[in-house]
Amino acid sequence: MSQDFAPHSVVTPGARIGPGVTVGHGTIIYEQVEIGEGTKIDEHCVIGLPAGDEVGPLRIGRDSHIRSHAVCYQGAELGDALETGHHVVIRSGARAGENLRLGSFSSLEGDLTIGDYVRIHGYTQVGRGSQIGDFAWIFSLCTLTNDPLPPSDLFRPVSIGAGAVICVGATLMPGCRVGRGAFVAAGARVADTVPDATVLAADGHLAGPIDRLMNLESGVSHPWLRHFTAGYPPSAHARLSQLRDEILGACARGFAS
Amino acid sequence: MSQDFAPHSVVTPGARIGPGVTVGHGTIIYEQVEIGEGTKIDEHCVIGLPAGDEVGPLRIGRDSHIRSHAVCYQGAELGDALETGHHVVIRSGARAGENLRLGSFSSLEGDLTIGDYVRIHGYTQVGRGSQIGDFAWIFSLCTLTNDPLPPSDLFRPVSIGAGAVICVGATLMPGCRVGRGAFVAAGARVADTVPDATVLAADGHLAGPIDRLMNLESGVSHPWLRHFTAGYPPSAHARLSQLRDEILGACARGFAS
Amino acid sequence: MSQDFAPHSVVTPGARIGPGVTVGHGTIIYEQVEIGEGTKIDEHCVIGLPAGDEVGPLRIGRDSHIRSHAVCYQGAELGDALETGHHVVIRSGARAGENLRLGSFSSLEGDLTIGDYVRIHGYTQVGRGSQIGDFAWIFSLCTLTNDPLPPSDLFRPVSIGAGAVICVGATLMPGCRVGRGAFVAAGARVADTVPDATVLAADGHLAGPIDRLMNLESGVSHPWLRHFTAGYPPSAHARLSQLRDEILGACARGFAS
Repeated sequence: MSQDFAPHSVVTPGARIGPGVTVGHGTIIYEQVEIGEGTKIDEHCVIGLPAGDEVGPLRIGRDSHIRSHAVCYQGAELGDALETGHHVVIRSGARAGENLRLGSFSSLEGDLTIGDYVRIHGYTQVGRGSQIGDFAWIFSLCTLTNDPLPPSDLFRPVSIGAGAVICVGATLMPGCRVGRGAFVAAGARVADTVPDATVLAADGHLAGPIDRLMNLESGVSHPWLRHFTAGYPPSAHARLSQLRDEILGACARGFAS
Repeated sequence: MSQDFAPHSVVTPGARIGPGVTVGHGTIIYEQVEIGEGTKIDEHCVIGLPAGDEVGPLRIGRDSHIRSHAVCYQGAELGDALETGHHVVIRSGARAGENLRLGSFSSLEGDLTIGDYVRIHGYTQVGRGSQIGDFAWIFSLCTLTNDPLPPSDLFRPVSIGAGAVICVGATLMPGCRVGRGAFVAAGARVADTVPDATVLAADGHLAGPIDRLMNLESGVSHPWLRHFTAGYPPSAHARLSQLRDEILGACARGFAS
Repeated sequence: MSQDFAPHSVVTPGARIGPGVTVGHGTIIYEQVEIGEGTKIDEHCVIGLPAGDEVGPLRIGRDSHIRSHAVCYQGAELGDALETGHHVVIRSGARAGENLRLGSFSSLEGDLTIGDYVRIHGYTQVGRGSQIGDFAWIFSLCTLTNDPLPPSDLFRPVSIGAGAVICVGATLMPGCRVGRGAFVAAGARVADTVPDATVLAADGHLAGPIDRLMNLESGVSHPWLRHFTAGYPPSAHARLSQLRDEILGACARGFAS
């Protein structure tokens, strides 16, 4: 596989670029960068922005696609098959597993951990220190905060469990915990803990187990892992099934109690 | 009219560029692109991003102005006198009429239809499938959704009637319909139908016909088409008048009932 | 101090560039621009975008740092030690004092005044005409509006007092006034006046003087100027102390009444 660097791009000697990597028009790649085989970096990106020697290189896995106008700092570690929208910002200390999808205008503020197969839509700010489990979904215009008395040096980042769903415009207040397979409605403000496999309604009350959440017209119901698996690679299907069973188990236990 | 392509720009041979078109510093224009006479494309844009042969070319009308850091995909059709802010994203299948104004950081997610003379301010995400009527206004930080049970393959896009006004930070929930000349208050969540020429208050209740909406200090009242026409070209004034009369008629009928 | 202009940048002759200024890859600097000593302009920026002769030049102070993909129009005046994130937009008529920090994706819409040492986080839109006092904090996803009957030509911009704190996702409605040292909770909608040193809760009620606002776990309490001064240069400390005393005085008076 041959590399292809567009005419107005700059790839600094010293950057470690895998076979088949393409670099788009106008993009600059700095020195402390490692990019895996077959990854595409599109137009006008800034890759490996210097952030001090102690943070280590920027690592981008193989078969990834970073779209135009992205900014990725030195010191982030991003797994294989990453896919970003346009105009994203990824800071030092962001660590993401396999196949993260990060929507346009979203930012990963650094020193945070994201599992495998996570989907984050656009305009979402993932605050420093956040922990996000495998297969979680975060829709547009969400905010993951960390300061309980702004501005202060107190630091209470948030966590989101595997398979959880955070709908558009939700605000995750400092220190809150969203359980595995939980569902946070559009516009909700999460101040505390949402138990596993539980729905938090827009008005902030806990509205029961997520398997009661149904679209009446179609009969489709949660957990989403029963009906929405097409977007994942075959290698992920066994893990999806296992998580689905675990979440259904939590629903049953919640119902019984 | 002579064309002017800035030194660090790239205009791919095969792109069909009208007379008098200017292309700014750093911008790249791909092959499947048609740009009308007199249009300005500013700095650092990506125009005609490839999206597969089946989507057709990107068409941008005449006398348009696309500001810096914009991304426009192949397969969008944008009418004459388009004006965008900075950092916008426009995807395949977006179809807009004449004189759309799209604010900075906003995105048109594709497969959507926008009428003539629509104004959309910044940071607004127009979801896939949305239908927006002529002369509608959508202010900053609004979201037009389409999935009633996220994440799912269910698809219930929203519609906004001609002359309607959606204020800052409103969320249009899947499948909702905002009537012609209706008004949605700042921060409101539209879950259902807002009838023609009706106000939806921030707390979600329908608050009467829009001609009761008045700024007490100045005495100016809605519908806005009575007092705010300066921003439109003379060719639009007859259509504005007709729409104003129709909306006033709806107010009168609403009041009578 | 020697200047350093990256290879793919353009610095227009006629721009007045101080000693030690660096200009990043791909950036373009137009003619009506003055940049102070030691300032760094990073990659893919558009600096001094023309806005008509009457607005005057763009002035950027010394020792500033403008990060990638920024857009700054001619006719803005930005004090020393400015620091911006990525993808910001600053329009004509924006006037900011010393050491403004403006987060990624935020915009200053023009004809507005910002004091010294102000911090604005990301995705925040500062509407035209806004007045922001020294040492104020505005967190992410806030909106400062100005039109009381949108769309109209009525113009009622907002003001934020010195040392005030506006938390994430707040909406400042047209004409509202946030007092000196006041605190607006996350997601609140400010419709009217928040008195000096007073807390506005998320549900919109005034919740008492800000010195009752405490993180129970740590015992840290407001006003923040007592416990959070490390981010400011030594030259600002005397002014911070004076403002803190003034705010504590307002708390005491509020409590007495």
